[in-house]
Amino acid sequence: MQAAAGEIEAALDMLLPRQPGPEAPLFEAMRHAALGGGKRLRPFLTIQCGRLFDVGMAQLRQVGSAIECVHVYSLVHDDLPAMDNDDLRHGKPTVHCAFDEATAILAGDALLTFAFGLLVRPDTHADPFVRCELIARLAAAAGARGMVGGQMMDLRADTYDHTIETVTRLQRLKTGALIAFACEAGGLMAKASPRAMSALNGFAHDLGLAFQITDDLLDVNGEEGRMGKAARKDKGAGKATVVEILGPERARDQARRLAAQAMHHLDLFDERADLLRAVAEFAVERDH
Amino acid sequence: MQAAAGEIEAALDMLLPRQPGPEAPLFEAMRHAALGGGKRLRPFLTIQCGRLFDVGMAQLRQVGSAIECVHVYSLVHDDLPAMDNDDLRHGKPTVHCAFDEATAILAGDALLTFAFGLLVRPDTHADPFVRCELIARLAAAAGARGMVGGQMMDLRADTYDHTIETVTRLQRLKTGALIAFACEAGGLMAKASPRAMSALNGFAHDLGLAFQITDDLLDVNGEEGRMGKAARKDKGAGKATVVEILGPERARDQARRLAAQAMHHLDLFDERADLLRAVAEFAVERDH
Repeated sequence: MQAAAGEIEAALDMLLPRQPGPEAPLFEAMRHAALGGGKRLRPFLTIQCGRLFDVGMAQLRQVGSAIECVHVYSLVHDDLPAMDNDDLRHGKPTVHCAFDEATAILAGDALLTFAFGLLVRPDTHADPFVRCELIARLAAAAGARGMVGGQMMDLRADTYDHTIETVTRLQRLKTGALIAFACEAGGLMAKASPRAMSALNGFAHDLGLAFQITDDLLDVNGEEGRMGKAARKDKGAGKATVVEILGPERARDQARRLAAQAMHHLDLFDERADLLRAVAEFAVERDH
Repeated sequence: MQAAAGEIEAALDMLLPRQPGPEAPLFEAMRHAALGGGKRLRPFLTIQCGRLFDVGMAQLRQVGSAIECVHVYSLVHDDLPAMDNDDLRHGKPTVHCAFDEATAILAGDALLTFAFGLLVRPDTHADPFVRCELIARLAAAAGARGMVGGQMMDLRADTYDHTIETVTRLQRLKTGALIAFACEAGGLMAKASPRAMSALNGFAHDLGLAFQITDDLLDVNGEEGRMGKAARKDKGAGKATVVEILGPERARDQARRLAAQAMHHLDLFDERADLLRAVAEFAVERDH
């Protein structure tokens, strides 16, 4: 994962534009948000899932970079005072603190737009049908019926009962949809079989939820320094999490079950899926 | 234009999703922003430019709707307290006033994402190459080197000298790029010749600037009621406009010159361009 993170960092550094002039802070804010931090889980998944089908590395890096831009834009907007009001992200000031709120709103907007512009480039995939398929799936995963809908549901967490069903739906929308797209993108680029695509989708959703539960456990137990962001935030804000409903111990069991289930989805793939199997284990055993 | 506005209103009403549940306000906010107001200049241009080449009406309406969603998202974010801090838009409370800031940020994000999802749909155009071309041009027109860059330049209008060059560049980015895409989209869908595409681009940029200057003149002279938004706002905030530099009279002359020039670009088209010619005239003679 560290190797992939390094490659994605370099790719983003190369791809993200710079520009002098009065709008320069916009470009700096986009780079501030996208560079120098993050696990790069989504592009890692895109690369590893694409490798199952021998998709070219340069193409996977480009699609992974686009997906990471969408993830980063969502963090920039999520951190805004009107949303989660966070000052720290990956151990650095959030964009609205390092710049200002208006610049953070615009930098998020520009990163989202940039992601679509990246996916549509001919060097992303030679077949325009595949590029359209990637764009359609990203729009669905990131939009009102995906990630943005999940953020809305999260903001209004005080308006509904927190049950395992509502919280699972929240996570599927808020983080699951984009993680699923990150995995499926690798298969889409190879025109993988419906059976393989369905395995990737199942893997992604179980992995995503396992990751999220572990994040929430770390948020309850974690120290701020190690996390690079304010810990215990979710509890204070009364956010809807699996940990809140099941308690830490049953939540950890549930995360382990999900990780095992995620691995099970990979049974139809050969040893090229070993890193994906390892990441399912890492999802629940990590301490940051 | 009124007929086209009615058609776009109906198309948006049909296309924009509704959803019950905790995230319902997101869907309501998207509809609040997109429905019930606005000249619908951009989709009108897409429809009229597409008709020059006999592109199908349903496809033009869909592309026009996507472009209008991008325009609307930019207004929702532009109206936020951290940006222009406007309470009124098309005679209605702005999204952050009718809902709240967080919902307005997310509704804008979702409208932008929705626009790309619309353009990529197979019923937008049968040829995926054309759909990719539309998406690539929209991403360029709306992103950091287009509309969002223009908004950034506008926010930082106190950091550079206001000359006819800087102000023209600001307008080209902030509104010109999306208006140009709205016109070019009609040609792209018909795989129009480079000569026709260049005429559409020239027409769009002259028209866009003429429209903007007239907007700024109305902003100086206009009454709040007729405009449906707070008038005289730009002057108070010291925004960079052509009117500020040339004064109202020379600015009006300049707008008329631009409108004539815009019409000139249409010389290679037949009487099917008559409505576009009329809109160039309307751009400078309107009182709202």
